[in-house]
Amino acid sequence: MNDCIFCKIIKGSVSCDKVYEDKEILGFLDISPVNPGHTLVIPKKHYETMLDVPDDLLKKIVLVAKKVAKSLIVTKEGGVNVIVNNYASAGQLVPHLHFHIIPRHIGDGHVFSWKSHKYESDKQKEEYRKAIQKSLG
Amino acid sequence: MNDCIFCKIIKGSVSCDKVYEDKEILGFLDISPVNPGHTLVIPKKHYETMLDVPDDLLKKIVLVAKKVAKSLIVTKEGGVNVIVNNYASAGQLVPHLHFHIIPRHIGDGHVFSWKSHKYESDKQKEEYRKAIQKSLG
Repeated sequence: MNDCIFCKIIKGSVSCDKVYEDKEILGFLDISPVNPGHTLVIPKKHYETMLDVPDDLLKKIVLVAKKVAKSLIVTKEGGVNVIVNNYASAGQLVPHLHFHIIPRHIGDGHVFSWKSHKYESDKQKEEYRKAIQKSLG
Repeated sequence: MNDCIFCKIIKGSVSCDKVYEDKEILGFLDISPVNPGHTLVIPKKHYETMLDVPDDLLKKIVLVAKKVAKSLIVTKEGGVNVIVNNYASAGQLVPHLHFHIIPRHIGDGHVFSWKSHKYESDKQKEEYRKAIQKSLG
């Protein structure tokens, strides 16, 4: 897509700090890393979200994400978040599918501010469970 | 593993609100949802993280995650986060691989508190880029 910054990176009209490339997938450093090494893994073809990308390509992307995740754990206590935000309401800023691969360290100061809740009732929970199960066919 | 709560769920000695099941994978409602419908997708066999799980199984899990993600988007402005926290320093609480699939809505009040940064210098960035690229072989 012409106005997509990630498509411009893939075309080469915008530069990036590339760490991985194959025929279908590109990995490069996030310009505003949560921690240094924070990498984005994206399909070269434009798909908005994980929900739109064909299954075969998604399977390839997740294996690259796994490889990058492994490469980012460099200490015994290290960890890594793999995050895909789908659509603006989920915090997706660039509407071109990207896997965030974020190296983590004990005491790096990052925490989820997301609050978890309880269901209002078992009835409400069961309604959600049934609706999802039904939708999954 | 005997002391793993997710293994107990799989064995049936601890109950869950199941939304999906096949031979190798289970999907069930998180008991402390970020938003109602928040689902966990896990392999039945015990693997600690996304880095340990065999590629073939990981590919199956990500496709189930995609299906669940689709089932959770019920409004036009809806979104969904797909999150895998690997190891304690990344916020993993149960050391059995789980994909969080979290439905999101405009105005649901959840935000990342993670702060992003700039690299200290282009030199630092290039050092990270080269190290990751080298590790990826």
